[in-house]
Amino acid sequence: MDLFLIVSIRSWRIEEKMEPWKTSITKVEPNHLTTKGYAQENLIGSIPFSYVVYLLLKGDLPDKSQGRMMDAILTACIDHGVTPPSAMATRVVASGGVPLPTAVAAGILSIGDAHGGAIEKGACFMQEGVKQMHDEGLTIDEIAKRLVTESREKKQRILGFGHRVHTADPRTKRLFQIAEEEHITGDHVKLAKAIEHVLHEQTGRNLPINVDGAIAAIISDMDFDWRLGKGFFLIGRVAGLTAHAYEEQTKFKPMRKMFSIDYEYDGPNEKSMKNE
Amino acid sequence: MDLFLIVSIRSWRIEEKMEPWKTSITKVEPNHLTTKGYAQENLIGSIPFSYVVYLLLKGDLPDKSQGRMMDAILTACIDHGVTPPSAMATRVVASGGVPLPTAVAAGILSIGDAHGGAIEKGACFMQEGVKQMHDEGLTIDEIAKRLVTESREKKQRILGFGHRVHTADPRTKRLFQIAEEEHITGDHVKLAKAIEHVLHEQTGRNLPINVDGAIAAIISDMDFDWRLGKGFFLIGRVAGLTAHAYEEQTKFKPMRKMFSIDYEYDGPNEKSMKNE
Amino acid sequence: MDLFLIVSIRSWRIEEKMEPWKTSITKVEPNHLTTKGYAQENLIGSIPFSYVVYLLLKGDLPDKSQGRMMDAILTACIDHGVTPPSAMATRVVASGGVPLPTAVAAGILSIGDAHGGAIEKGACFMQEGVKQMHDEGLTIDEIAKRLVTESREKKQRILGFGHRVHTADPRTKRLFQIAEEEHITGDHVKLAKAIEHVLHEQTGRNLPINVDGAIAAIISDMDFDWRLGKGFFLIGRVAGLTAHAYEEQTKFKPMRKMFSIDYEYDGPNEKSMKNE
Amino acid sequence: MDLFLIVSIRSWRIEEKMEPWKTSITKVEPNHLTTKGYAQENLIGSIPFSYVVYLLLKGDLPDKSQGRMMDAILTACIDHGVTPPSAMATRVVASGGVPLPTAVAAGILSIGDAHGGAIEKGACFMQEGVKQMHDEGLTIDEIAKRLVTESREKKQRILGFGHRVHTADPRTKRLFQIAEEEHITGDHVKLAKAIEHVLHEQTGRNLPINVDGAIAAIISDMDFDWRLGKGFFLIGRVAGLTAHAYEEQTKFKPMRKMFSIDYEYDGPNEKSMKNE
Repeated sequence: MDLFLIVSIRSWRIEEKMEPWKTSITKVEPNHLTTKGYAQENLIGSIPFSYVVYLLLKGDLPDKSQGRMMDAILTACIDHGVTPPSAMATRVVASGGVPLPTAVAAGILSIGDAHGGAIEKGACFMQEGVKQMHDEGLTIDEIAKRLVTESREKKQRILGFGHRVHTADPRTKRLFQIAEEEHITGDHVKLAKAIEHVLHEQTGRNLPINVDGAIAAIISDMDFDWRLGKGFFLIGRVAGLTAHAYEEQTKFKPMRKMFSIDYEYDGPNEKSMKNE
Repeated sequence: MDLFLIVSIRSWRIEEKMEPWKTSITKVEPNHLTTKGYAQENLIGSIPFSYVVYLLLKGDLPDKSQGRMMDAILTACIDHGVTPPSAMATRVVASGGVPLPTAVAAGILSIGDAHGGAIEKGACFMQEGVKQMHDEGLTIDEIAKRLVTESREKKQRILGFGHRVHTADPRTKRLFQIAEEEHITGDHVKLAKAIEHVLHEQTGRNLPINVDGAIAAIISDMDFDWRLGKGFFLIGRVAGLTAHAYEEQTKFKPMRKMFSIDYEYDGPNEKSMKNE
Repeated sequence: MDLFLIVSIRSWRIEEKMEPWKTSITKVEPNHLTTKGYAQENLIGSIPFSYVVYLLLKGDLPDKSQGRMMDAILTACIDHGVTPPSAMATRVVASGGVPLPTAVAAGILSIGDAHGGAIEKGACFMQEGVKQMHDEGLTIDEIAKRLVTESREKKQRILGFGHRVHTADPRTKRLFQIAEEEHITGDHVKLAKAIEHVLHEQTGRNLPINVDGAIAAIISDMDFDWRLGKGFFLIGRVAGLTAHAYEEQTKFKPMRKMFSIDYEYDGPNEKSMKNE
Repeated sequence: MDLFLIVSIRSWRIEEKMEPWKTSITKVEPNHLTTKGYAQENLIGSIPFSYVVYLLLKGDLPDKSQGRMMDAILTACIDHGVTPPSAMATRVVASGGVPLPTAVAAGILSIGDAHGGAIEKGACFMQEGVKQMHDEGLTIDEIAKRLVTESREKKQRILGFGHRVHTADPRTKRLFQIAEEEHITGDHVKLAKAIEHVLHEQTGRNLPINVDGAIAAIISDMDFDWRLGKGFFLIGRVAGLTAHAYEEQTKFKPMRKMFSIDYEYDGPNEKSMKNE
């Protein structure tokens, strides 16, 4: 009871065990910043920004091939016009009259399992497939057939194939070309191409590898953790979203009428409240 | 009344005038994407990602000097450890058990007038200062003195000077060195340095140009719209925030006890409700 | 150098002065939670949730009149169909395949100066107007005329008047009726009505008080801080946004085609890169 | 080629099949708003806000018992001091100098599987358990034993039990008391209590039903969809987060030093870049 009185006029700390922080990202000292082992002043202006992104996600600097591949991946994610959920979210939020970063963040929020998410899930799927192949001594074609057959039996869509606009995504072709030039192509890219082939064979449908699927395969061949999948997409896309927020705020009035939606109200007919 | 009945079973459209969309960012056609005049497949892997960011924010590709400067600016924004609002927001949100982009977006939300905002406001301030200087035929030193004197009279802080940790921010020095090497330094960087000098002279305090102030001056000399100020910061920082979200999710348990806060409850003492 | 070595293998703390936390919201003790002076177990189920919202924003519990007014205000904010930025942001983000709270948060982000913001700015405007009226011994009509005239001279829109869909917002009428019944109507509501009248007189246009303007006037008569203005809107609207996120996720497929936008690409014509 | 030219000077629409919108939330007509069958002007001020929340989530108005239970549930979620991820995210983001809704949204983002998420997953778990019980003609005790045994065998934690601060959560006791008084208690609440008992029996540990678990059980007895679980928490919590954002913005300086973190940098030792 006495303790209680003291507590209510002084301060109070919940005594939970606090975990110590460990971080491998940046050490901050007065006038000195070290990120993943490199002084920031040495990174600034000495190497491309994309190399620094690679450093942050992989733990060390890329060689020239890996660096060029990283540039290509980020560029392939920048923008797909005004209709994807991310661009639309950024623009409608910008039209509410908020600061630029708030609008950009709204766009990033839409990056989920259905938008950009195929990189994460596709990379996970392919990494498990390649592991299975090696464990069981299978060929690329054998594992591709098994994966497609299993997915079709479970009625699960294989992510990273097919696109709502493109029948031959120009970004996919270019990304694979660079992966080839830079000698990055490995089992995962081969598996992606084999799956595309088997899908066509088994379903008769053309489900080409889309940009998400291509990136999933390439980052897997670059030995990235699949859990970073959405990260590649968002780091690239944030550049486009910044352009969208800026365009909306400088070219249009706030709260402009952005679209017409013919909607059908399918709720209950109007009724009175019981107590009326 | 009849109309009403039809409406409730059919669809309904509010007849507001809809503004036509115009966008200069990306044209989307089947199997072809054009961003700011360039086919995306030509951009991918041909130039650094930072050049593409420049393209999106400026409207055309940079030359090599501008490109290197852009790389330097984005790299200078990547990370400042675990304590800034953006890193902390990303980490506490990640600890709630949400997808990576949700946690990164939370970090971006904190980029406001007090965190990263000095780039926007500082650039606006310097651009107006340089304009005034030219309009009235003043020297850099004269306009710097006037701006500092006026701000002190209005008790307004000049943004972009001083840092809570660094007395000589290593990023500032390096950014100015590159701006010099690439012949980007112009009136705005000169004005920033003159303001730093006058501030010291008039206040006796050491308020060195911080990284935000340096970027504000440099993007002004590169002829960027100051309204994009927070955009540079967020595009660079999102790389660091992605690393923070990933580290939190892979190295720690959800809902870990992250910090102890000795807080004092200064609300009313406990009381009973009137109707008790 | 020695210090450096120790630092790099042990821990490091930036020695900034840390401000002590003071909070008047909730005191947390084992098995006991006190919010604004009331044990949470006494609040739960004893009074309406709206009374607790009032407690959190005002510092003490409302009487029955204030409580009913609070219920009315929150209900007036719940939803305005699928087209406002907040509903649209929630729905497009939900369609990306993210958790429900992420989609709801995206909607809240759009609550800005142009969407819901008229409550904050309108309340600030009216509170300053009423203060001026009392300071200078003016009548409601005199201050209304002055405010409208000044705003028109400065070409500043008075926020909280006019609506893109409604000529007579049904929510405004009902809110004012309840404010009257509960004897809450005071100088601010009177001023809002006088401004509506003067606006019509001076411009010939019908710019009726909208729901934001009505709430701005009423919370001012209830002596709330205008800086909480957007808070009322968001607490009410979050209920509608939750319904939108849920409807999108349970009624539609992810990444559905939500709208057609006829857009004109007004960027540069396609060109080749210089180094090609 | 000709087509191309026309496209580049006129407008362009991707011809995807657009799904028609159907919404049961609100019908918007000039001067008339109908939400879930009720004119908004009839809802405003006639019933508590909590009843309207129930309407939005359930499709019709509650009776008095259900309404009181809804008030209790929302109030039980309002706040738990400064340390939960949601409050901390709101406060650090507010300290960045952003608008109030941006800070509140950041808090909502942290509501995930580990924070507030036990309502969704717990409700799903209990609803499946009760269904199984009915399908197989088991008693509450039998299904509780089976669920606990199975979860322990799979090493899966049953969500909604145990708390990092409270051994007897005062909110749980009060919520169950009201559910009893209002005759809402049914199989799900009984199952929750039986699980608590079996957990203690099998593990020897005291893992009392926490506030999330209590709400999960009660909304299940009220026949709510478990997918709305996080919605209850966020609608209640947003009131507390608004108070946190407001307190941070009015009581403290932006970018205040909020906490000390003793962190250990466990990244690589400082090294030079290869090309230096």
